[in-house]
Amino acid sequence: MLITLTTDFGTQDPYVGIMKGVMAGITPGTGFVDITHAISPQDVRGAAYLLWTALPYFPAESVHLVVVDPGVGTARRAIAAQTPWGTLVGPDNGVFSYVWAAAPPGLIVQLENHAYCRPIVSATFHGRDIFAPSAAYIASGVPLREFGPVIEDPVRLPLPYLDLERGDILGEVLYIDHFGNVVTSIGRLVWEGHILHLDPAFGSLRSILVQPGTVNVVIGGQSFGPIRRTYGEVSQGEHLALVGSEGMLELAISNGNAASTFNLHVGDVVEIRRTEADS
Amino acid sequence: MLITLTTDFGTQDPYVGIMKGVMAGITPGTGFVDITHAISPQDVRGAAYLLWTALPYFPAESVHLVVVDPGVGTARRAIAAQTPWGTLVGPDNGVFSYVWAAAPPGLIVQLENHAYCRPIVSATFHGRDIFAPSAAYIASGVPLREFGPVIEDPVRLPLPYLDLERGDILGEVLYIDHFGNVVTSIGRLVWEGHILHLDPAFGSLRSILVQPGTVNVVIGGQSFGPIRRTYGEVSQGEHLALVGSEGMLELAISNGNAASTFNLHVGDVVEIRRTEADS
Amino acid sequence: MLITLTTDFGTQDPYVGIMKGVMAGITPGTGFVDITHAISPQDVRGAAYLLWTALPYFPAESVHLVVVDPGVGTARRAIAAQTPWGTLVGPDNGVFSYVWAAAPPGLIVQLENHAYCRPIVSATFHGRDIFAPSAAYIASGVPLREFGPVIEDPVRLPLPYLDLERGDILGEVLYIDHFGNVVTSIGRLVWEGHILHLDPAFGSLRSILVQPGTVNVVIGGQSFGPIRRTYGEVSQGEHLALVGSEGMLELAISNGNAASTFNLHVGDVVEIRRTEADS
Repeated sequence: MLITLTTDFGTQDPYVGIMKGVMAGITPGTGFVDITHAISPQDVRGAAYLLWTALPYFPAESVHLVVVDPGVGTARRAIAAQTPWGTLVGPDNGVFSYVWAAAPPGLIVQLENHAYCRPIVSATFHGRDIFAPSAAYIASGVPLREFGPVIEDPVRLPLPYLDLERGDILGEVLYIDHFGNVVTSIGRLVWEGHILHLDPAFGSLRSILVQPGTVNVVIGGQSFGPIRRTYGEVSQGEHLALVGSEGMLELAISNGNAASTFNLHVGDVVEIRRTEADS
Repeated sequence: MLITLTTDFGTQDPYVGIMKGVMAGITPGTGFVDITHAISPQDVRGAAYLLWTALPYFPAESVHLVVVDPGVGTARRAIAAQTPWGTLVGPDNGVFSYVWAAAPPGLIVQLENHAYCRPIVSATFHGRDIFAPSAAYIASGVPLREFGPVIEDPVRLPLPYLDLERGDILGEVLYIDHFGNVVTSIGRLVWEGHILHLDPAFGSLRSILVQPGTVNVVIGGQSFGPIRRTYGEVSQGEHLALVGSEGMLELAISNGNAASTFNLHVGDVVEIRRTEADS
Repeated sequence: MLITLTTDFGTQDPYVGIMKGVMAGITPGTGFVDITHAISPQDVRGAAYLLWTALPYFPAESVHLVVVDPGVGTARRAIAAQTPWGTLVGPDNGVFSYVWAAAPPGLIVQLENHAYCRPIVSATFHGRDIFAPSAAYIASGVPLREFGPVIEDPVRLPLPYLDLERGDILGEVLYIDHFGNVVTSIGRLVWEGHILHLDPAFGSLRSILVQPGTVNVVIGGQSFGPIRRTYGEVSQGEHLALVGSEGMLELAISNGNAASTFNLHVGDVVEIRRTEADS
């Protein structure tokens, strides 16, 4: 049994360790895996994207504790939800939206049974007092329906921007990673021989084909050229567009930092322009 | 069985991993939980505060390895101490003082049995050579008295500043967290209906009552107003005083960073002033 | 069973968590220990040094997953190698060179059996698709020869610079740690009473004796004086040379940061000059 943790707590403070201490007291021997604690403070959308990328790699019996919770202390609900990749536990603020777009949730319940919370619930640290103990009791086998009533209307965020209806393909920057690689909403792209099959990651849009050598990827007026297969196709320090490890279009610099070099940010519009040769 | 780690080693260097390797070789299968490795280098007092906040959330059979050790290589002693929340292992430099203020220690021993150290003890890395192996042997069941003589006079730090003897209440900033929330020594505060019961966290001072709506919290000439229950009582970006998750008075900005906005630091004096309405 | 992780992924992104998820699905219950994820991006030599310092502290049945991989997507091989301190798994780019200088590798194989990779191998994240599943299958007991052909010619980096052939001893800065302590290639130094026995850490150079009190350690024109035993021999804020926890000559400031104060960098030449008294 495995409990993952995703928060905006950072690792300076003892908050993450405290939640693990609470859980270890309830379900001794459970393993913990940190997904990240470096979500920008209260960035629900960034967390939603990271969970979408990470969760499919975890065993189905995992429990995923998520505490990115700008509404702590307000009336927002605490929830748990079944997915094919384990049980989600966290605030009902949309943070699970993208995971649910990939696989509709099974049972969702509101966490309101005091028997599975700490005896005193603070107004400011529900991660410790509600979410961590709930995650631990779920990991130890307590059925979801014991925690509270079923809910049908969880909060959902708007899906990432992707427009396939024009001649060109439009999307947006979803995430910038540690290396400065720029992940976009244009995907998922899968190579089929020499063409790319674009099967949208979110929503139910139509699939289309892309001729990777006859397009020009453009962001903020800067051309990144055609879509390449690997970093090895360009020289060190050269910039390129390629298909990232999640199948999303990425902008990168070989052994460099594309985001800082080209001043790119989350939400920037990116475009795959079909060149003459493609029409 | 669980071993926690609290150090000023950071996570860039392999020092923490090395200590875990040493411990895994002695007590295979033991789980590790990092409380923090971001204590400011050699900040014994900051570590003492964090241990005080974190340890009560851990099971009684835990072992807590603490390496914040400006005196490494000098004659300062290495110790282990029993508490209600597990066994402490670390240098005798006062780092456990605040934990002991919350719950007087049981047995304390000096770690000087070479059988439970690495064969060669370096002058600079007792975390690896003395503390980690001692912690692992304790976790594997070796009784404390095997490690060395009982000691009665461990080093203790002065307790945090709190003055309840004037009309107003005076304290100091104890800690600034990752979000820029400013934790003070004024606590522990517990809501009893509409009033706050202040039962000092440290020492044996008298308890008093606070009328939260009729006081003004002031630090560095800046007013934070009355004491609120939740962030939700003010608008985003507004500053406020509230009771934090440990029951200490905290200064914060709703979805903002109070420490950097108001230039607040550890040691700054904070005051709860009774307003006219309260007298 | 224990799997360690050493990468240049940082801890902001979910990449490390994803690799652990993949491994937990293959070998449930295995413990993970992070050695570091803060290798400078694609700094193969820095990773090689850290592995050399860290691995000897791990049990022989460990598996060490290393992903510092500027060549991902090119023809560089993926390998696994037996050592006295466990099995190494990572790219064949020299990152294991210093470990092999300390203990020649046993069996080395190329990882090319698709049965032990993820079903689809991306061009950009072999950590997730090749190295992590291979490490997990090795940890679960699959013999190395199942993974692919034996190789005899792994890539090796040049060894750290150390010159004992002159009257003075010359070396270089190998690593700068979190505290700003400056680790050099001059070692390993072992105290034998009042003299130091220098037995080179890398390669097969001759051993020599050093009179610690009659030498002057110099770097960048700055004198660090004789070689001391502990920080305690100088006052707070004073700089000194001493033997570090790995037996390498280190330059430090007592409770300070030597690297930033004296502007020292990896690769800088350091010198142990014999003074008149020593000749």
